[in-house]
Amino acid sequence: MPANKQILLDNRPVGEASTSNFRLTSTETPELRDGQVLVKHHFLSLDPYMRGRMNDSKSYAVPQALGQVMGGGTVGEVVDSKSPKFRAGDMVVGMGGWQQYSVFDAEQLGALRKVDTTKVPLSYYLGAVGMPGVTAWYGLVRIIEPQAGQTVVVSAATGAVGSAFVALAKARGCRVVGVAGGPDKIAYAVDELGFDACMDYKQHRDAASLTAALKEACPQGIDGYFENVGGMVLDAVMPRMNDFGRIALCGMIAGYDGKPLPMTYPALILMSRLKIQGFIVSEHMEVWPEALNELAGHVASGKLKPRETIAQGLEAAPEAFLGLLKGKNVGKQLVKLI
Amino acid sequence: MPANKQILLDNRPVGEASTSNFRLTSTETPELRDGQVLVKHHFLSLDPYMRGRMNDSKSYAVPQALGQVMGGGTVGEVVDSKSPKFRAGDMVVGMGGWQQYSVFDAEQLGALRKVDTTKVPLSYYLGAVGMPGVTAWYGLVRIIEPQAGQTVVVSAATGAVGSAFVALAKARGCRVVGVAGGPDKIAYAVDELGFDACMDYKQHRDAASLTAALKEACPQGIDGYFENVGGMVLDAVMPRMNDFGRIALCGMIAGYDGKPLPMTYPALILMSRLKIQGFIVSEHMEVWPEALNELAGHVASGKLKPRETIAQGLEAAPEAFLGLLKGKNVGKQLVKLI
Repeated sequence: MPANKQILLDNRPVGEASTSNFRLTSTETPELRDGQVLVKHHFLSLDPYMRGRMNDSKSYAVPQALGQVMGGGTVGEVVDSKSPKFRAGDMVVGMGGWQQYSVFDAEQLGALRKVDTTKVPLSYYLGAVGMPGVTAWYGLVRIIEPQAGQTVVVSAATGAVGSAFVALAKARGCRVVGVAGGPDKIAYAVDELGFDACMDYKQHRDAASLTAALKEACPQGIDGYFENVGGMVLDAVMPRMNDFGRIALCGMIAGYDGKPLPMTYPALILMSRLKIQGFIVSEHMEVWPEALNELAGHVASGKLKPRETIAQGLEAAPEAFLGLLKGKNVGKQLVKLI
Repeated sequence: MPANKQILLDNRPVGEASTSNFRLTSTETPELRDGQVLVKHHFLSLDPYMRGRMNDSKSYAVPQALGQVMGGGTVGEVVDSKSPKFRAGDMVVGMGGWQQYSVFDAEQLGALRKVDTTKVPLSYYLGAVGMPGVTAWYGLVRIIEPQAGQTVVVSAATGAVGSAFVALAKARGCRVVGVAGGPDKIAYAVDELGFDACMDYKQHRDAASLTAALKEACPQGIDGYFENVGGMVLDAVMPRMNDFGRIALCGMIAGYDGKPLPMTYPALILMSRLKIQGFIVSEHMEVWPEALNELAGHVASGKLKPRETIAQGLEAAPEAFLGLLKGKNVGKQLVKLI
């Protein structure tokens, strides 16, 4: 039995999360029972939703249990199998958690999925061709429902969701404007990801200033907004929304540390007859095949060139995760475990 | 030519509206041109949306022009006609404004509509079987889309919209809970309008207190909310919304005096995967025939027994309107002009 390093949630954050909330431990991988599969993780995905799960309060995700391995998406290789569905050497994606190995019940529908790494690099199945990509797809296609020529905006523009969003929206003939933090991200968004424009929220002290900048970048107003952050950016975008605009609410990372961030002017929902809808992509499994197929196609054709920020080794996961919450990553934040 | 008393918007409110914003004047009704119809108004409708139009800021309604007759729905009798479509004696509904007479262009589609007063009293075409009734219908049927057994809540429960809402929602097998102000309205809501329960927001100093009361009144949570007021009541309802709940945003009367009222905890939209949608019923004319037909049926069968608060004489309109904004009316607020 190989040794298996794990990171547990040791205690819940009070305000900002810190590395002291986590605890590194080690165990042995258990003997497989019939129907089980042992996976050696190559990459662990770090995602903003994990911060919500660290709190004990009502959240869209079930709280992460204390003393248990932190949950999270993983890609890796089957190293042992007592299931006819998988064999050693299969490359797979699943929710393996913050650890080097995990045991899956192969009979549980959707728990573990084989992936093809001939055209799509393995790690992309945690990003552009995985949960973040499908998240962008659902918000754009099912909530924003853009028409060609319309303007759509996404916050956290250079993250895993934002970079998939711009490819999907450009493929539909939209003007696509991002919001991100800092000159490097702005340049990356416009030069590499294909955004028509990208706003640096760090250049704006308040929502009114960012609203004015958005007016220039979106001369026809904003028809659809994909919200990853909340707070000041949402306040800045709302006054620029066109009548009958749609806002897909995917994340409010700006409020994850516990300060509830108000929406300053909800009367705009009425005045502009907006639709605002929150969603969690794991509740819409029916769209995954179609979405993944489109995303893989954009990767294969080069229209979607995701960048990754990769931390090395399980021990680096907590620090990398806290960096993600502060926007230090560019593109998909991963931890390489081999 | 009969004399025609009119009320104009004289100046815009700074903060609270007051009677000094209005000016009474008198003119002669003009000679009719071909295709025109002269209507003598029996009733003028007073509605919260008019307060929004008094401001010059962006609002869902075009601002009311200064020095012009205040806009508003009217019912009355055709007294002269140069159109083959209408004859003297026809009872009609239209947007005649705050005046005793108005001239309509009969060729303009939808400007003037004949109504049948054999089963439905004339004034109801401004309330239960008019714009407020269709407003309730659209928000309930097209946005909330309730299923039998679900719980729906409406604020300003005893107003024209609220009293239509409860009849429409009960007809669909819902548990219907209202929010209104003061013991008389609460008793009226439960005893006469058929609400399963009605909360008195004046008994609650803050949103948390009202949230707790709603928990008792809505033991299965809230699946749909029809919002007429905004502010504290919206903050109180949101934490009790069930996953995938729908909020139809029709009015935010609490913020009409210019203080922007924030939404305290928009992260709930994400956590509970809510849909919030603003709408204006005049933009959905396609539903009016179906909605009016259902509403007239509920009136005829006695399931919808609207109450009216009637001010006498055009001169009483400003005071009655300000009373409406403070919730002094029960049911539909009208001004009798004959």
